[in-house]
Amino acid sequence: MKTHTLLMPLDMHLHLRDGVMLENVAPLTAFTFSGALIMPNLVPPVDTLEAVQSYKQRIMAAVPNDYFESYMTLFYKNYDKAFLENVVDEITAIKLYPAGITTNSEGGVSSFDIEEMRVTLEAMSELGIPLCVHGETDGFVMDREAEFMSIYELLAKNFPKLKLVMEHITTKAAVDMLDKYDNLYATITVHHLLLTLDDVVGGMMMPHHFCKPIAKRPEDLDALLGVALEAHPKVMFGSDSAPHPQHKKESCGCAAGVFTAPIALQLLTEIFEQFDKLDNLQSFVSDNAQNIYGICPEFKEVTLEKRPFVVPENYAGVVPMYAGEVIGWAIESVD
Amino acid sequence: MKTHTLLMPLDMHLHLRDGVMLENVAPLTAFTFSGALIMPNLVPPVDTLEAVQSYKQRIMAAVPNDYFESYMTLFYKNYDKAFLENVVDEITAIKLYPAGITTNSEGGVSSFDIEEMRVTLEAMSELGIPLCVHGETDGFVMDREAEFMSIYELLAKNFPKLKLVMEHITTKAAVDMLDKYDNLYATITVHHLLLTLDDVVGGMMMPHHFCKPIAKRPEDLDALLGVALEAHPKVMFGSDSAPHPQHKKESCGCAAGVFTAPIALQLLTEIFEQFDKLDNLQSFVSDNAQNIYGICPEFKEVTLEKRPFVVPENYAGVVPMYAGEVIGWAIESVD
Repeated sequence: MKTHTLLMPLDMHLHLRDGVMLENVAPLTAFTFSGALIMPNLVPPVDTLEAVQSYKQRIMAAVPNDYFESYMTLFYKNYDKAFLENVVDEITAIKLYPAGITTNSEGGVSSFDIEEMRVTLEAMSELGIPLCVHGETDGFVMDREAEFMSIYELLAKNFPKLKLVMEHITTKAAVDMLDKYDNLYATITVHHLLLTLDDVVGGMMMPHHFCKPIAKRPEDLDALLGVALEAHPKVMFGSDSAPHPQHKKESCGCAAGVFTAPIALQLLTEIFEQFDKLDNLQSFVSDNAQNIYGICPEFKEVTLEKRPFVVPENYAGVVPMYAGEVIGWAIESVD
Repeated sequence: MKTHTLLMPLDMHLHLRDGVMLENVAPLTAFTFSGALIMPNLVPPVDTLEAVQSYKQRIMAAVPNDYFESYMTLFYKNYDKAFLENVVDEITAIKLYPAGITTNSEGGVSSFDIEEMRVTLEAMSELGIPLCVHGETDGFVMDREAEFMSIYELLAKNFPKLKLVMEHITTKAAVDMLDKYDNLYATITVHHLLLTLDDVVGGMMMPHHFCKPIAKRPEDLDALLGVALEAHPKVMFGSDSAPHPQHKKESCGCAAGVFTAPIALQLLTEIFEQFDKLDNLQSFVSDNAQNIYGICPEFKEVTLEKRPFVVPENYAGVVPMYAGEVIGWAIESVD
């Protein structure tokens, strides 16, 4: 039977939430990934040294072994340099949310005034702390990411030594931006390599495909596949896996987020095999992130096998993408 | 208190379904409208003289008085002239669905071969039977209506004496098409005068705003408002009000359709007043349709009053648009 082995997979954009949800979902990621960049949009947001440290402790207490590293992020605010010097060893990046743009982002940035942000962003540049950005305006839903490109340009030009990561990109506009600035990088989710808006509202309305940013047009999907399948060196895998309780996803006014953590590697392997690009998957799911972030994850070897796998209907009350459907690859072993 | 009176309102695109649902929703339309054009997409579709007659009987049995006319439609297939001559007095129009494009449309047209349709469409032209069309391709959800414009052009050019109604238009592309062909008309729903895709998936996912065709972009909304508020003489109100049981709208994979029948006139009055175009509403909700279809509805005088009205949470298990929200106008009296 055909197999494929990945070394030290990394998920460079992950939501673990907190409490019981954290305890339920963290082990699913720790099983197959060497590490993950943990998003800070808890309530209240993770915005102090103590909050980072205690959240990391809760995460590590929730995973069953020590072969998993939680790369912590701080919720972006205008911090002074002394604060950042104090926290730099505990974090891998700082995550910026425009205020109110997605789940638990109310305390985010409400205007991109470069001068107001200068102290923080220059300190981050000097300390080598990357800035991860949820890049959406509050405009029309299909235009939000493309409209945000001018803000990426503003940041990239004004802070050329700041590593800027365009998180969970969904558009050709963002792909086209990648090579315009040396300090611009991107993560791509697995669901944005599979879905367009057609899969959200083109047939029936599909809450488990509903996320922010929303899946866009066919030409956007093609552009994302283009850089992911070639493992463009500035592109990394980040699942943006976002667990919500089933009743919050399947009721009126459902919450945004696609839960992919336990099936992400299987789906990625299926996609890369389908396009005959399996040789590039290692770079996309690990090596590029190691180079961009300068991280050395714990050893982990994940072997996948090409065989039909029925995605579980739910994992502890959280419904995954493709629940109940058959996908083409399964986890065979983890060492 | 400010009031506004409408005479003989007509809903030129209405889904009443059948059985208990019909009994529950038909009276809501009959209360405020003089008549409605009834869609034929039952299971099985309304495609025989007997089906038209018996469906009309069931509708009239469900409405509490005789001040309501159900203008019947036949489900488009390639019919011969003898059949159409036999049925012409019982129907007001024939409704064409591309196969599989929306609820109960599986038996629709799968290819627009003009020669195959010629006998039917020429007979309809001679007999003066308008063709109402659900104009969507099976392409990307945001492009489906715009892509269909070439088919409208093909039909309009080949059958210049056939009255063609572009149903529930949602795009600037369709608005721009209106004046290109003398024989082209359109209906517009009330929800497409209020919503864009932002209201469906821009914040939370809103199943009660999910319909086919889906609400489009802000510039499309502006174009629709442009012709509706001016009561362009080729444009009529058609609610496309589509009742689904609450559990089918609020579960995973929810059905398409917005239920507006009981609040349509109130919302229209609010919109037209907001843009200072109340004087044009009579043409949009009745006079234009009378001219286009050559129909003379029963007398009905509906007076609306400007006062806060809380939209009911549901009508016999069907959740209306804006359930529980306050709108600005209410029905004051119907004579």
